Amino acid sequence: MKHFLNEGDTIVTEALDALVLLGEGKVARLDGYPTVKVLVRRDIDRAKVAVLSGGGSGHEPAHAGFVGEGLLTGAVCGEIFASPSVSAVLAAILAVTGDAGCLLVVKSYTGDRLNFGLAAERARALGLRVETVIVADDIAIPDALRPRGVAGTLFVHKVAGHLARAGASLEEVKAGAERVAASVRSLGLSLSSVTVPGAPAVERLGADEVELGLGIHGEPGASRIPYQPIRDLALVLAARLDASLPEGAPIALLVNDLGGVPPVEMAVATRALLASTKRDVRLVFGPERLMTSLDMKGLSVSALPLDGALEEALLSPVGPRAWAPGKRIAATPAPLPLSPRLHADKARPSEDAPRREAIARACERIIAVKAELDALDAKIGDGDTGSTFASAARAVLADLDELPLADAPALAGALGDRLASVMGGSSGILLSIGLSAMAAVVGEPASWARALREGVRRIQEYGGAREGDRTMIDALVPACDVLATGGSLAQAAKAAREGAIRTTSMARARAGRSSYVPDEALRGVPDPGAVAIATLFEALAGETS
Amino acid sequence: MKHFLNEGDTIVTEALDALVLLGEGKVARLDGYPTVKVLVRRDIDRAKVAVLSGGGSGHEPAHAGFVGEGLLTGAVCGEIFASPSVSAVLAAILAVTGDAGCLLVVKSYTGDRLNFGLAAERARALGLRVETVIVADDIAIPDALRPRGVAGTLFVHKVAGHLARAGASLEEVKAGAERVAASVRSLGLSLSSVTVPGAPAVERLGADEVELGLGIHGEPGASRIPYQPIRDLALVLAARLDASLPEGAPIALLVNDLGGVPPVEMAVATRALLASTKRDVRLVFGPERLMTSLDMKGLSVSALPLDGALEEALLSPVGPRAWAPGKRIAATPAPLPLSPRLHADKARPSEDAPRREAIARACERIIAVKAELDALDAKIGDGDTGSTFASAARAVLADLDELPLADAPALAGALGDRLASVMGGSSGILLSIGLSAMAAVVGEPASWARALREGVRRIQEYGGAREGDRTMIDALVPACDVLATGGSLAQAAKAAREGAIRTTSMARARAGRSSYVPDEALRGVPDPGAVAIATLFEALAGETS
Repeated sequence: MKHFLNEGDTIVTEALDALVLLGEGKVARLDGYPTVKVLVRRDIDRAKVAVLSGGGSGHEPAHAGFVGEGLLTGAVCGEIFASPSVSAVLAAILAVTGDAGCLLVVKSYTGDRLNFGLAAERARALGLRVETVIVADDIAIPDALRPRGVAGTLFVHKVAGHLARAGASLEEVKAGAERVAASVRSLGLSLSSVTVPGAPAVERLGADEVELGLGIHGEPGASRIPYQPIRDLALVLAARLDASLPEGAPIALLVNDLGGVPPVEMAVATRALLASTKRDVRLVFGPERLMTSLDMKGLSVSALPLDGALEEALLSPVGPRAWAPGKRIAATPAPLPLSPRLHADKARPSEDAPRREAIARACERIIAVKAELDALDAKIGDGDTGSTFASAARAVLADLDELPLADAPALAGALGDRLASVMGGSSGILLSIGLSAMAAVVGEPASWARALREGVRRIQEYGGAREGDRTMIDALVPACDVLATGGSLAQAAKAAREGAIRTTSMARARAGRSSYVPDEALRGVPDPGAVAIATLFEALAGETS
Repeated sequence: MKHFLNEGDTIVTEALDALVLLGEGKVARLDGYPTVKVLVRRDIDRAKVAVLSGGGSGHEPAHAGFVGEGLLTGAVCGEIFASPSVSAVLAAILAVTGDAGCLLVVKSYTGDRLNFGLAAERARALGLRVETVIVADDIAIPDALRPRGVAGTLFVHKVAGHLARAGASLEEVKAGAERVAASVRSLGLSLSSVTVPGAPAVERLGADEVELGLGIHGEPGASRIPYQPIRDLALVLAARLDASLPEGAPIALLVNDLGGVPPVEMAVATRALLASTKRDVRLVFGPERLMTSLDMKGLSVSALPLDGALEEALLSPVGPRAWAPGKRIAATPAPLPLSPRLHADKARPSEDAPRREAIARACERIIAVKAELDALDAKIGDGDTGSTFASAARAVLADLDELPLADAPALAGALGDRLASVMGGSSGILLSIGLSAMAAVVGEPASWARALREGVRRIQEYGGAREGDRTMIDALVPACDVLATGGSLAQAAKAAREGAIRTTSMARARAGRSSYVPDEALRGVPDPGAVAIATLFEALAGETS
């Protein structure tokens, strides 16, 4: 497994250095690398309670990313997935604690409990006022003696930081933090295991498995359930969380990307979660990476019953960029109507049996070669040529009865309109440009050969491709030439196919997306757009495979 | 490949719905799903220039995440990696454009150029004032006819949004955007290919390869280079970028996570990049996910030469949370000194050859079984038991000459201190607790059996584990019992080993990290901590394997 890291054991210190470097002078580290890996605010007001947290690294932005105004006074960082040492925690306590005292917010993992706990005892022995709150928000294992502390800890940080900034006493800050710790509930769900730098990548989960109730250190989840659409996974998560929460009170949800979920999937998952819970969700934090587990493709959801004071504490602005501000859930605004100027008048439907049959044949043939075209495109591009052509073909098929089949100019225009609106992608719009141009010259009775020449000319004008540039032009131009000199559709189809085959040996694409691809990757692969055009001509000529 | 998505083609509409749902009423979508996927501000001031952008999806938070005050007026979203259709772009233009006109910011990919370009022409035909800026910031391919538009486009959005908010005319907004587009340079680097939902996962890159100069749609990079530490990869990137920039001017850097890089690695990479460039970096944006390529484990860096006006435009606050505010690079604050109260007085070194030899033997043996213990732990936990014990053993070995070997209480205390400071993790602190407790009762001449009993008692007290809980206690207690009844070290080692073996069949862990692991995962695997303790006793007893 590859990482953007250096050799050796300097991951955490280098990451902390980056936070200091980009911290605009607001944070500093304590001396004492590599043992003491502690980030603290530079503007500590020791007349106020200090709030310290931390634990193993690999959970970024937690915890060092949350050091700043209104949140953490400092963060004590261990190595990846390993608790910091007692002396590191003690060094942090000594650095931030004034007369007002210090609250340690500790996630309930054995190591953190022991190290933070012992450090707290040593600090007390030195005469400092130190209190500890243990967070155990994970509901993965119903009968767990000591549930784990996971992303719900962030709500504890927020409330403690808010109270401390407001000047509350150590007892008050501790009471507020304990209240949150006692009522927050979290549950995780993952599609993958974690890759720990320096360790071999081991994927525990099968292709059809999802892990439910996992921690944030790569340990196996409480159970495995079948892989299923997120709307169904969200129902499972929401039912478990709902059951762990009191009825009635509105809640805040924190949706946490465990590290490896693309933002678009987190958005889809959050929508599904909000649709699944039976609780009254008033605030949402995230979806963002807040307490990660390195690269785990998983998410966790934390829920906290709310009252007015908690809402205020959760919503007060803070300094650290990494904190995800809460968003109030209100009525969703209705979609805005489209401008009436968007739609030109539609041509009236009419019938022409041979044209209907030819169009249907071409569309069905394009749908039949979808996978083949996608596979070709996957070798040199983004693998969607077949899907793009097929979606257009399906739309045209579905719309056959609405087409002005007996009116060639209107038909070309209507097909062009449909491709532009359903096909997307560059081939769709280029074909639309071509059909629009054909509409202007085809006439009725139709002069398709002349029209095609005009269409191809316009495609070249807008798309910028010439023959030999490894695009659909390499199939279109030869077919066009055959038709222009009186050749049959079958002969044109043959010329298009030969043109498509010639793209196989074209070393360099000069237009289209594969122009960004190095020559070696192209060798031996025909241009999928040219292949699609050849297939289209063959179908129009009545050939069936 | 598994995704947090539903079946079918509703990824983008569901993700947009989530943005509206979480948008606190500030954004709305246009009607017209699934063809028209457009997000717009709800508070459009049509006396000001509208700024529209967009393109294929899969680049989140770009572009819909950047709709809001001071940035984009609207975003037109295509399907994953596919341009939106002309009619979708036109619908967006019609929705946002007033008398002040509209600027389209378009990334130079063929599809986007064609669709946004044609839509702009149609809008102009309808009498609207529309201008287009094409961004082509990618320097991957030196002789590219049309370089791609990638993450540098975000600087264009920011400057255009800033000028539009300030009330600049369409010509002024366009000129400002074109100035940025003309001078911004970007380059990408990736460790992996992209996984497109619905398509099979294909990894193009070998285990020792890195791709340089890639786009944001999964197309292959311009070249492959050997996998190497990030400090060296950063030198390659920085040299290429530096060469593309004018000398002298300070620059802004935008460090973009292409989707699958854990935050801790992005931090390490950003530090390396800042250390590598020869340019005067004044502002840094990121590291964050800003213009992603789904789950690609890659990053891109964009650089923009600065002047005062640009700095102001780039730093003005904006509404959208997804925008990464620029951070000024200033002198890094020095590490804060540790409190002198952290360090107790150290015991003076002294010599005792048999103890030195026994300790060295034990440490060397622990180092020898590191991989074996890590492998055991990987089956049930986070795979670091061996590494944790071995790092402690190495530290003790390195420090042998500093130990008070002839003074048993001081020796136990000193070993406890060292484990607490270098070992981290739960086993380190538990052993430290044990050794500290031993120090109090061992005496000199030493009564190791009695001291060990006291140490184990304290370990149980803090750690909470009893015999049968599948922890190192299951090896420690039997060894302790043997020694307490006058048995030899060899007999104690045998008892420890038998205890460790018994953990193999203990169904449920009740303490330690594997208490969170389901029974099935534990079956047949001995507790690695217990195995480590047995190994330690065997080494102390003089056994060599």
